[in-house]
Amino acid sequence: MTQAMTSTEAPAMTNGLNMEALVGTVEAVKQNPMLGQFEFRATNKWIDGGENRSRIKEFYGAGTEDESRTSAFEFTNGEPPVLLGSNEGANPVEYLLHALAGCVTTTTVLHATARGITINSISTRLRGNIDLLGFLGLDESVPSGYRQITIEMSIDADCSDEQLDDLLEYAKGHSPVCNTICRPVPVSLERVRA
Amino acid sequence: MTQAMTSTEAPAMTNGLNMEALVGTVEAVKQNPMLGQFEFRATNKWIDGGENRSRIKEFYGAGTEDESRTSAFEFTNGEPPVLLGSNEGANPVEYLLHALAGCVTTTTVLHATARGITINSISTRLRGNIDLLGFLGLDESVPSGYRQITIEMSIDADCSDEQLDDLLEYAKGHSPVCNTICRPVPVSLERVRA
Repeated sequence: MTQAMTSTEAPAMTNGLNMEALVGTVEAVKQNPMLGQFEFRATNKWIDGGENRSRIKEFYGAGTEDESRTSAFEFTNGEPPVLLGSNEGANPVEYLLHALAGCVTTTTVLHATARGITINSISTRLRGNIDLLGFLGLDESVPSGYRQITIEMSIDADCSDEQLDDLLEYAKGHSPVCNTICRPVPVSLERVRA
Repeated sequence: MTQAMTSTEAPAMTNGLNMEALVGTVEAVKQNPMLGQFEFRATNKWIDGGENRSRIKEFYGAGTEDESRTSAFEFTNGEPPVLLGSNEGANPVEYLLHALAGCVTTTTVLHATARGITINSISTRLRGNIDLLGFLGLDESVPSGYRQITIEMSIDADCSDEQLDDLLEYAKGHSPVCNTICRPVPVSLERVRA
């Protein structure tokens, strides 16, 4: 999916992205939309209490099983003492904020690059509000998830404020994690024999 | 919010959770529902291209600013080469699967414990499907997020299959991350001066 570099010169990079590869990817997906189909995966194992660990490595995309990763990424979920854990790791709703922060940032960088905008810096600060009455099953009228998530983004780029606002609105609308949160996405839970 | 242990004996643990503390937490929130209000937070900084890093430490909950963490958790988002990165870390949509796996697992363990069910093991396998035509802005009718996420859970517990199916349906409905994905949750993106 990425274009082979035929020159021995360093590739033209904008915002840390190889422009030639970006254009090549977009053209390849335009020509063959099936290349846009991706399946991401994770496995997870319960350790004890609120502690569990995920392993992430393989995925399918661009028409093939990816083989670029020689080892798996591993992440540990935990809970703070107030939620009956001992801070074995960040907790799942905190990992969700990390995923959202990263996705909105990467989507902003990618589409800035496509627009020829150079970004100097991006920092975000997220907060999400949850009422645990839902999670604990104490009030079934209270949703168990986040009520609202706010992202404050500090961004410095070589464009006008109008271009920046347009870019951020576009990025918010095209960020896969943001869209997964903003839109109702079906999750199925199937029990398989232990 | 956790009850002080007045005995010098080890606390009664079920599934790695302190039952006395669990009952104490539920009773405290019942008495004073404001204790159920939590605000989780993350900050994130763009590094380059598809690489960025989050820092997670403080949160508000149970009526106070939590001070249990002496250092921050840090996580790096990256992208595989086919998505113009060099596997600097798992990517944001993969972290979302990790968050979902952990949350459904922890919610299952918590509510099993409340029901007096002992769990011997839980393993999950997740897959989520995305069509990158949405993310790349090549087809505005294609959502940029996950179309569907499937969780296969292998669980062994000392209860009947009927009790297990009832527990899993309840856990799916009360998992904060699962609920945040299944339900449309508002995300606001505010630009602040760099």
